[in-house]
Amino acid sequence: MTAGFETLRWREAGGRSPPALVLLDQTRLPEEERRIPCADVESVAEAIESLRVRGAPAIGVAAAYGVALGAWHGIGSGCMRATVDGAVERLGRTRPTAVNLFQALDRMDSALEEAAGLADVEVYHRLVAEARGLQAADADLCRRIGEHGAALLEDGDTVLTHCNAGALATAGWGTALGVVYAAAESGKRVHVYAGETRPLLQGARLTSWELQRRGIAVTVICDGAAGAVLRDRGVDCVITGSDRIAANGDVANKIGTYGLALMARARGIPLYVAAPTTTVDPELATGDRIPIEERAPEEISNGFGRATVPEGVSVYNPAFDVTPHELVSAIITEHGISRPPYAGSLPGPGKGA
Amino acid sequence: MTAGFETLRWREAGGRSPPALVLLDQTRLPEEERRIPCADVESVAEAIESLRVRGAPAIGVAAAYGVALGAWHGIGSGCMRATVDGAVERLGRTRPTAVNLFQALDRMDSALEEAAGLADVEVYHRLVAEARGLQAADADLCRRIGEHGAALLEDGDTVLTHCNAGALATAGWGTALGVVYAAAESGKRVHVYAGETRPLLQGARLTSWELQRRGIAVTVICDGAAGAVLRDRGVDCVITGSDRIAANGDVANKIGTYGLALMARARGIPLYVAAPTTTVDPELATGDRIPIEERAPEEISNGFGRATVPEGVSVYNPAFDVTPHELVSAIITEHGISRPPYAGSLPGPGKGA
Repeated sequence: MTAGFETLRWREAGGRSPPALVLLDQTRLPEEERRIPCADVESVAEAIESLRVRGAPAIGVAAAYGVALGAWHGIGSGCMRATVDGAVERLGRTRPTAVNLFQALDRMDSALEEAAGLADVEVYHRLVAEARGLQAADADLCRRIGEHGAALLEDGDTVLTHCNAGALATAGWGTALGVVYAAAESGKRVHVYAGETRPLLQGARLTSWELQRRGIAVTVICDGAAGAVLRDRGVDCVITGSDRIAANGDVANKIGTYGLALMARARGIPLYVAAPTTTVDPELATGDRIPIEERAPEEISNGFGRATVPEGVSVYNPAFDVTPHELVSAIITEHGISRPPYAGSLPGPGKGA
Repeated sequence: MTAGFETLRWREAGGRSPPALVLLDQTRLPEEERRIPCADVESVAEAIESLRVRGAPAIGVAAAYGVALGAWHGIGSGCMRATVDGAVERLGRTRPTAVNLFQALDRMDSALEEAAGLADVEVYHRLVAEARGLQAADADLCRRIGEHGAALLEDGDTVLTHCNAGALATAGWGTALGVVYAAAESGKRVHVYAGETRPLLQGARLTSWELQRRGIAVTVICDGAAGAVLRDRGVDCVITGSDRIAANGDVANKIGTYGLALMARARGIPLYVAAPTTTVDPELATGDRIPIEERAPEEISNGFGRATVPEGVSVYNPAFDVTPHELVSAIITEHGISRPPYAGSLPGPGKGA
């Protein structure tokens, strides 16, 4: 079972070609599979800001390669350190909510420290190697999350998911969808309802696209239909990813997750959050400190090339919401399945279970 | 305070012009205020099916005029009765959920019975008069609903609404929005959050349009943001309209209402349903017998002229859901504010309080 696409791919410098991070442009899916080579920091930053690459783990890996691209351009400049610092700073300003971004940039920063005194070219190679390591690690984390989480699904289960926490959101086969893929690999039939996820429709455009490619039954619904689907369509569980998890288990994820969590709880349906520990922010005791990105009103008012809100009307467009830990039935990390209470028991980044 | 637009208007025959029902084409808002004259039954039926006119009360009034147009074309045909019966049958097949449609067609049918033996032209005039009566009555019902409901709002309140239950959905100033307009008329400042209401965006396109015209503060949100808005933005109550209310108070309304009801209940925020008694179906004991219209998948997958769902992926598109009466804090009709238990106490069509 293979997806047959690469969310992101590092292309080494060769001949007269500079290195590049080649991204599958997710703003163009499902209409077009367009790959864009990003050859400098600004291209990567723009790709993250405009959601050509999105999903907390994928953002982290893309940003790491972005730092390596910065180093490439610093070779021979006489100011490698400042160039790489500038790259880290620029990439850190792209999106505020996903903590994986900052974890990845910290890792790159540490690699830069460790390479102090080396020749520019060697620094560049060390940073590429670090980014490759993050990419490989993320794929491994996804697989382990999937294998742990698959135990929560039974043959014939129906899953509701929101946004896209799949192969397109990670450097592996995904987090929430990794659980579905692992269950399918072990022979369980799973039917997924994908909330379309306004405003940018990651559920409709991306989740259904990758599930279809892997032969998983998927049905797209409007976000507003979630309540009726939870009640009337035999949903066994809700599984989502996350962009940041506080130490107490409060979960930031795509706007709409909190509402889903309330509905699922009212219906007695478990909500599982699948995420690597790189998404856990041990420095935040609770979720109310998680910065929530507010995006441009045009995503709602003009999102499809048509004016769908009258001119002059106010629009509120938070990209994420925070679901309190009481509503989260389990958090699936690469170390296993954590159950409440999460405070003190949730594995953090780099920690074992 | 006037809206400055007419959702529907009857144009008498004059000179060589036949009569017509002139509709504000709601599929074109907010981009364009286009009026379409419907001069025959099929045009009215098509306008209802394609949501050029929508909203349970407005559908009822439009269908009544559609029957009158049928009678116009029956004049001198020698088969007035069969022509009008055909019109009633055609219009009754347009949309299954709103009971106002069937109440209105029943009224037109009774008017036809009462006109038996009269000349064709006189039958036609009787049916036009009946439709006019329904239109005037609906405007009056809206005003009374608004005045009763306004007592539930205080100066400075924040209201969340879903879909459009305003002047565009009725022959008056609306039901849910009528409550807001009446509160504003009495000097209360109200801020409305309008859920955009996928797939057809009646909240984004229509509710915000008419609120803006009347000078009411309005903010559009994605449907998925409702949970976070209920928690974080000081919402005092949720007010929606309805398409059919069972005798026990179960409420069919635009898809998404049930989820909102669950969220509001979890947050301790009241949900008020505003609707005329023409929306109450006393023949249905509970809401699980209300027929729920399922609409074309293309409303979700190609709703904006772009393919937002990959080809071949399944889509589920119910237009309505049913909110159980336990989640409804009050039902506001033209007779006043009904509180639970609704069974036996909810005024039905034509009944006093």
